[in-house]
Amino acid sequence: MDLKTLYAPVKNDLADVEGNFKSLADFWKKDFPDLHDMLKHILVGGKILRPALTFMSGRCIDGKTDRILKMATANELMHIATLVHDDAIDRADTRRGRVTVNKLWGTEKAILLGDFLFARAGEFAASTDNLRVTKLFSQTLGIIAVGELRQARDIFSASQNMEGYLQRIAGKTAALLKMSSESGAILAGGTEEQIQTLANYGYNLGLAFQIVDDILDFIGTEKELGKPVGSDLRQGTVTLPALLLMQRQPNSNPVSRFLAGKDREENIARAIEQIKSSGIIEESYREAEKYSEKAINLLEGLPESTCKEALKALASYLVRRRN
Amino acid sequence: MDLKTLYAPVKNDLADVEGNFKSLADFWKKDFPDLHDMLKHILVGGKILRPALTFMSGRCIDGKTDRILKMATANELMHIATLVHDDAIDRADTRRGRVTVNKLWGTEKAILLGDFLFARAGEFAASTDNLRVTKLFSQTLGIIAVGELRQARDIFSASQNMEGYLQRIAGKTAALLKMSSESGAILAGGTEEQIQTLANYGYNLGLAFQIVDDILDFIGTEKELGKPVGSDLRQGTVTLPALLLMQRQPNSNPVSRFLAGKDREENIARAIEQIKSSGIIEESYREAEKYSEKAINLLEGLPESTCKEALKALASYLVRRRN
Repeated sequence: MDLKTLYAPVKNDLADVEGNFKSLADFWKKDFPDLHDMLKHILVGGKILRPALTFMSGRCIDGKTDRILKMATANELMHIATLVHDDAIDRADTRRGRVTVNKLWGTEKAILLGDFLFARAGEFAASTDNLRVTKLFSQTLGIIAVGELRQARDIFSASQNMEGYLQRIAGKTAALLKMSSESGAILAGGTEEQIQTLANYGYNLGLAFQIVDDILDFIGTEKELGKPVGSDLRQGTVTLPALLLMQRQPNSNPVSRFLAGKDREENIARAIEQIKSSGIIEESYREAEKYSEKAINLLEGLPESTCKEALKALASYLVRRRN
Repeated sequence: MDLKTLYAPVKNDLADVEGNFKSLADFWKKDFPDLHDMLKHILVGGKILRPALTFMSGRCIDGKTDRILKMATANELMHIATLVHDDAIDRADTRRGRVTVNKLWGTEKAILLGDFLFARAGEFAASTDNLRVTKLFSQTLGIIAVGELRQARDIFSASQNMEGYLQRIAGKTAALLKMSSESGAILAGGTEEQIQTLANYGYNLGLAFQIVDDILDFIGTEKELGKPVGSDLRQGTVTLPALLLMQRQPNSNPVSRFLAGKDREENIARAIEQIKSSGIIEESYREAEKYSEKAINLLEGLPESTCKEALKALASYLVRRRN
């Protein structure tokens, strides 16, 4: 099973999102070639997971509508905008194996390109003519920003716990996956119960997805990740595996020593090694699977459909993926 | 005449915006004190021109509505968000005589705070339950971002002209003033003609306002400006006075020499001096007055009201202000 196979039921829909992206970039080709180049660079690649979720959730209830396409486009644009700002903040050089906007065009233009993408995302959301998803859009952007601000606050802090970790990943990742499935259900005309079911599905999927992301940051290869191994910890962000290591060795551990600025290179190497050899990865996966299973179980109440099966398969796949 | 006197007809409305700002900051006091502090710092001061425009435009047509208050709050929040990102981009130390967010909390948090403010602004706009102003909001944010991107592209470029200058200030300033007056007219239930009249008023006022801003950057004192004299040119941004000097001395002038990196301190001092002593300031003011008068004339078609007179007085005041 790979993503392409999983996305088969919404393949044409996803091609339409790519069509929207192409139009978005092409619009500026003559009048503002620099903006065109930046958009061409950033609007490709990625898992296009958020639009897939929106389409699949919509199809669990009803067929395709033009409004769902608009919202799916908005959801992916918001995601890309947050990535552009994240990379500017982290001063990251690569993303998805490609050079970042901030590295190519500078932090200044990355900030403005992100703002531009937020604006276009908002326009796509409002173009659904549905106030509920338009409000959800702004609320979600606010939640993401607060999640990111909490992460920035906690950077290089040794006093962290599971509650704070979950709060952060709920904000920075689960909120957008929740919006992606929820908005599909709203625009397909789902009942309030169906909407809440798919919203909760997306939320739990988001938690599982981010935990796996945080695991892969330790066990993936640089080639698979498209960025250096242990990037999060290097940036001072304590994710689940690092947190578990700190909890297992409360008196002294390489993560705390790294955060305190002691022998950074040596301690980060030790942290990665101990995380990989201590059963922490397995424990982290169990945590991710807990949310993934919860997401799958939530779907039971929905009528049988190809897309319902695809959403289940997606939740299973996302905890098994390698990148 | 000062702003306080001009704002008298909408004094209570503006106090309500401040009330919204206080609630917005206070919400985070317990749960996230750092965010509370940042909001307290940034949500004070300023001209609150955009909410004033929204209220006055609304009152030209009808009385006060709760939806106009929401939109007035959205308009000012969007303005503040753009300032936070601008200062992060320019690495500015002071704004309105106060230390900037990026200086106090770092560029990273300034980017995220700006995103948070855009999100809250979008929520306020959507909470009007009016799709037209909600769409206008995202469109305007897009126009501002493109205006800023054009400014970033043109930085330290010696090949600039009046058309490009007007295109930039239309994007970075006039679009938001247009939205401020237009949204007030829409939410007050104005006719399409009234809406277009007030939209055009705001747009022309915005051009006049920005030209005066660009003049004051050369002729103001550091105390009046709340930032160093000649800041724009120092950042490599060629505004109207600098552009006029380049046009008057096409073969050699201190602006071009500064942009080319030759004896920067000497050339910027010369540029400021020549701009002040050559009639360029007067010519720039005539340009600003052209737009200010156009704004005033546009209002003729509207019924007589206190707020119509206030909008006229505002347009006259804004080209005479010193800060």
